[in-house]
Amino acid sequence: MKCYAMLGIGKTGWIEKDKPQCGPLDAIVKPIAVSPCTSDIHTVWEGAIGERHDMVLGHESVGEVVEVGNLVRDIKVGDKVLVPAITPDWNALESQGGFSMHSGGMLSGWKFSNFKDGVFAEFYHVNDADGNLAVLPEGLDPACAVMLSDMVPTGLHGAELADIKFGDTVCVIGIGPVGLMSVAGAAIKGASQLYAVGSRPNCVQAAREYGATDIINYREGDIVDQIMDKTHGKGVDKVIIAGGDNDTFIQAIKMMKPGGIIGNVNYLGSGDYVKIPRVEWGCGMGHKTIAGGLMPGGRLRMEKLASLLVTGRIDVSKLITHKFNGFEHIEEALLLMKDKPADLIKPVVVM
Amino acid sequence: MKCYAMLGIGKTGWIEKDKPQCGPLDAIVKPIAVSPCTSDIHTVWEGAIGERHDMVLGHESVGEVVEVGNLVRDIKVGDKVLVPAITPDWNALESQGGFSMHSGGMLSGWKFSNFKDGVFAEFYHVNDADGNLAVLPEGLDPACAVMLSDMVPTGLHGAELADIKFGDTVCVIGIGPVGLMSVAGAAIKGASQLYAVGSRPNCVQAAREYGATDIINYREGDIVDQIMDKTHGKGVDKVIIAGGDNDTFIQAIKMMKPGGIIGNVNYLGSGDYVKIPRVEWGCGMGHKTIAGGLMPGGRLRMEKLASLLVTGRIDVSKLITHKFNGFEHIEEALLLMKDKPADLIKPVVVM
Amino acid sequence: MKCYAMLGIGKTGWIEKDKPQCGPLDAIVKPIAVSPCTSDIHTVWEGAIGERHDMVLGHESVGEVVEVGNLVRDIKVGDKVLVPAITPDWNALESQGGFSMHSGGMLSGWKFSNFKDGVFAEFYHVNDADGNLAVLPEGLDPACAVMLSDMVPTGLHGAELADIKFGDTVCVIGIGPVGLMSVAGAAIKGASQLYAVGSRPNCVQAAREYGATDIINYREGDIVDQIMDKTHGKGVDKVIIAGGDNDTFIQAIKMMKPGGIIGNVNYLGSGDYVKIPRVEWGCGMGHKTIAGGLMPGGRLRMEKLASLLVTGRIDVSKLITHKFNGFEHIEEALLLMKDKPADLIKPVVVM
Amino acid sequence: MKCYAMLGIGKTGWIEKDKPQCGPLDAIVKPIAVSPCTSDIHTVWEGAIGERHDMVLGHESVGEVVEVGNLVRDIKVGDKVLVPAITPDWNALESQGGFSMHSGGMLSGWKFSNFKDGVFAEFYHVNDADGNLAVLPEGLDPACAVMLSDMVPTGLHGAELADIKFGDTVCVIGIGPVGLMSVAGAAIKGASQLYAVGSRPNCVQAAREYGATDIINYREGDIVDQIMDKTHGKGVDKVIIAGGDNDTFIQAIKMMKPGGIIGNVNYLGSGDYVKIPRVEWGCGMGHKTIAGGLMPGGRLRMEKLASLLVTGRIDVSKLITHKFNGFEHIEEALLLMKDKPADLIKPVVVM
Repeated sequence: MKCYAMLGIGKTGWIEKDKPQCGPLDAIVKPIAVSPCTSDIHTVWEGAIGERHDMVLGHESVGEVVEVGNLVRDIKVGDKVLVPAITPDWNALESQGGFSMHSGGMLSGWKFSNFKDGVFAEFYHVNDADGNLAVLPEGLDPACAVMLSDMVPTGLHGAELADIKFGDTVCVIGIGPVGLMSVAGAAIKGASQLYAVGSRPNCVQAAREYGATDIINYREGDIVDQIMDKTHGKGVDKVIIAGGDNDTFIQAIKMMKPGGIIGNVNYLGSGDYVKIPRVEWGCGMGHKTIAGGLMPGGRLRMEKLASLLVTGRIDVSKLITHKFNGFEHIEEALLLMKDKPADLIKPVVVM
Repeated sequence: MKCYAMLGIGKTGWIEKDKPQCGPLDAIVKPIAVSPCTSDIHTVWEGAIGERHDMVLGHESVGEVVEVGNLVRDIKVGDKVLVPAITPDWNALESQGGFSMHSGGMLSGWKFSNFKDGVFAEFYHVNDADGNLAVLPEGLDPACAVMLSDMVPTGLHGAELADIKFGDTVCVIGIGPVGLMSVAGAAIKGASQLYAVGSRPNCVQAAREYGATDIINYREGDIVDQIMDKTHGKGVDKVIIAGGDNDTFIQAIKMMKPGGIIGNVNYLGSGDYVKIPRVEWGCGMGHKTIAGGLMPGGRLRMEKLASLLVTGRIDVSKLITHKFNGFEHIEEALLLMKDKPADLIKPVVVM
Repeated sequence: MKCYAMLGIGKTGWIEKDKPQCGPLDAIVKPIAVSPCTSDIHTVWEGAIGERHDMVLGHESVGEVVEVGNLVRDIKVGDKVLVPAITPDWNALESQGGFSMHSGGMLSGWKFSNFKDGVFAEFYHVNDADGNLAVLPEGLDPACAVMLSDMVPTGLHGAELADIKFGDTVCVIGIGPVGLMSVAGAAIKGASQLYAVGSRPNCVQAAREYGATDIINYREGDIVDQIMDKTHGKGVDKVIIAGGDNDTFIQAIKMMKPGGIIGNVNYLGSGDYVKIPRVEWGCGMGHKTIAGGLMPGGRLRMEKLASLLVTGRIDVSKLITHKFNGFEHIEEALLLMKDKPADLIKPVVVM
Repeated sequence: MKCYAMLGIGKTGWIEKDKPQCGPLDAIVKPIAVSPCTSDIHTVWEGAIGERHDMVLGHESVGEVVEVGNLVRDIKVGDKVLVPAITPDWNALESQGGFSMHSGGMLSGWKFSNFKDGVFAEFYHVNDADGNLAVLPEGLDPACAVMLSDMVPTGLHGAELADIKFGDTVCVIGIGPVGLMSVAGAAIKGASQLYAVGSRPNCVQAAREYGATDIINYREGDIVDQIMDKTHGKGVDKVIIAGGDNDTFIQAIKMMKPGGIIGNVNYLGSGDYVKIPRVEWGCGMGHKTIAGGLMPGGRLRMEKLASLLVTGRIDVSKLITHKFNGFEHIEEALLLMKDKPADLIKPVVVM
């Protein structure tokens, strides 16, 4: 079958591979829509997860089931399905303990285009079909639904980690597609004042539509100063980090009240240490909690988040700025993510 | 001063009382707007809290501070303030333990028109002014702001007790003004399908605007059957009870999945026992948690909830169906709450 | 193979059945030690779960693996294993949502001697061997280890549900073997004053050894009165219910402070309704939360609880008052549980 | 009155000061027993909180009330009282939000020997007597009770922050008196394997008595390596940091499983940044939460923790290695804390 793969660090291309085998609990899926992710860019061009050869890229997809294993009960051939980027082993100890995204080891719920082939192929393999696939709800546009693989669950997890409560003032740092979903997530989890840090005009526009009350542009001065000004020196209750780098935590700690929580969903791809400023962290005593984690995946998560789209709580269509028709446009879509033109939020390729 | 009081069970009227005294930590407030509450009706005509003589009614108000005690630091004479129905003693053991509404004993954070005079008077007394009053945000209409005394905090507390999470299916039983705020609260706490149980047309209309996806009319059949039909036999994740009586819990347990939580904010005024159906409660083993509690009050709560109005997350103006101008209309407004005409949600009296 | 079974309501006996088949994810286990449970008594003599014919009884066991399916990776033939009473389907939606004991429907994680054959047989079947079996730690006596199937996880779950915190005053109602483990669990979760309600002398003695500070004997007066006396009218912070019946909740609510939590782990076998006293429940407003649930099962739980035995945090040997050698004594042990002689806490049969 | 004070950074001495004034909500207390704390050493000799002149030292004390303000209801002259190191303003917004230790600003619940005079004086002032003082339980030795001011609440808070659950494997880094209370706290919160990192023989001995199952001596190799060896490469579930410095977090992150929580109760007195190792933190995605905070203070906390001593759950007498009789020995006791002789855990001065 035809696939679009990482050939090695810094190199991608179309290759041929055998169609994947279906284990007794698994499914083979044919993509209906896929979307490239910034992680794909990190993986290929920054070598974020190390060297890989001829590994199929992509972990965001909606597809149609073409084969299921003999132990699969719920998912049927022909089902159109939501496919999460994270597909846990549900009986692993980590899953039993509530951290299925780390089943089998830290981050090991992330399999597609990490340690197995991804979804940019004519067919791809999904482990534990019953546990990890959800039927695409009727009436949900597949191009929108593909946002459920990673953008929606990752963005909303930021709001979960930060434990937003009614009336919290929240700062979301980074308003790419994940950050925009963090904005939307914070808004439908009870935030009041919602400061979004970013500068690209179409992202700023989307952030406002998703519920940001104020935009903080880092080009107009230190973002901590801007937040402290706007909050009359009090700072915010919670911070969601969905962009930036290791040093972003310094700003987050500085702008946050004691008792606050940082929810990080930004993949930190380089550098040795995340730095926490000692004094502003209350010398270790300030009850400024730092949390960060990979999105929860699996079927229940897909079903629950899909229901937010179906009921209109979140409109992901605003994320999709570029839409391609045809498998062959995957490369083009990926390179868009690499080059980040001014008008891009997220591209989708529909087959 | 002139006040509108409960004279005894079943009797109300205008009386004269001395202006209240201001303790060193307290404030004396002159009402700007007040609203009668169903609790006032229970208190007077059902004797829900027992006999009372010449007790000033009312616990929902926005006012202007006319006097403060000598130990008050933040609140100033002339401040226009939000006044919560619940005004805890903040240093009580219960408050230290996180249950300030029960400071000094179960429900004892509720003082107005319970064991001290209420707000339907030319002046009223507020204990711990710094801890319990919040400055009315600029631009917030006092008639709307009076919904922050009880309707918003009580309704939203239902969503907090039920611990709504992203994508939860939720049933809100009862869509009077508190239930409508539970609907709004569930929607901005992450509910997807949101079933609202009620029948009065204007409440139904408001419920939809506040985020209900489906209306369940108990006149069209058993509400449990209707919910089970709509959820394909699965039931809902969470239930908020904001109306009904002791037996409403039977329905709530029956319609809820294992792992669910009932959040009750309905004051149960009569009957000996709330009944939990044994089998549907999993013979005590079903992880269907039953929670219920009085709204949290105090200044922080007022500030946080006010910020939800200021940022437009909740539009309480839809609650206010009747607006009166002048102190003398308090009786009329109260009797409206008693008689519940078809077009009533909530009346407000602005001075 | 030989098995000890429920022949019908009120009747038990030895029968022959085919050795169970091993599915690809499963294991076949030969018992090393088993113990009858009060639930077996309810099942047979009270018909608590309805009619059953020739269903093998028993759900508490330690065993040796004699066969594993071809998809099993961790568990090996010859492993001596802890076998939880609750063996979830780990990829079910309920499990993904944190309620694995209800995988496939309320209480459906409970399979042994409920809707499949139990462990009182020469061989028994365990679904999802990797997800549900834990290797018996070296040095842990199998007779003690069998307490990990149900007594320890159920008892400790009571303390988890009640969310015991440092310095909480706690009442444990019922001090049979489960209640004793609730006492031990409350003590190692931070309770200070720990009131244990019971009367049988050896249970009272064990309760004291497990950490009870006071014994409340219901024969010496109303237990609510006794608790209120001992707490100077304040009541307790939390209540764990591990015995009694539907009406026990009336007492629990009455003796508990606002803000408290009832953690129920008592299987309620009869009656229509659990009753919650309206006034003492704060008219629905008292923040007295009522929680109850089946024990969590599975491998991680077994490993974690076994480590409490291995490190000496809990000494379950005090539970075992009767020890039999030989499979043929299962009937005798079961009848002991039925007849409850004065000196019985828990019998174990070692093969 | 006579007091022992910080004269300036690096200098201490006996001085005369006026007896403190009692406000309407406050109390004046005469010490019965006091204890110096490592924080006093940091304050004086490391200038940890900046320059101070003639500030009375000490924040650990049990005393007798000699005067109360006219608004104080519960506490009486003559009461022997527990005095927490942290005495919040209970009506502050931070207190209402559950973080009373930060009432009035980060760490501002800490008043004694921080921004007001401490307890090493003939008399000292306590704000909000009803909210912050607890009556010394009958039979509790004042020398032991003084451990309730800081050692017990701080140590146990580490176990709370790390959210220890039944069967968790836990590493406590640092076994001075606070760390020992973290060990004790972890043990009575459900830890199984409990690794204590330290080397001083009497602390090691006490750690074992408080529940440590293994001692990790950093002189015998890298502590991360030792922990990974002992846990067969898996790491621990939770880490409590009660000693070390900014870099201790690097070790803590490395030794902890995904899903774990670090609970820090070590005051970090110097350095610019706490460093979090990016890769072992799962590139920000590992769900390794970092929490740290000042002990909760106030009356309820004192009452609850005192009950753990009274019921024998924790025996603090093992902490007290040096006992002095007479106010004049305060200097000697303080210098002991500074010089840390091999046999010291904690000195107490009884008047």
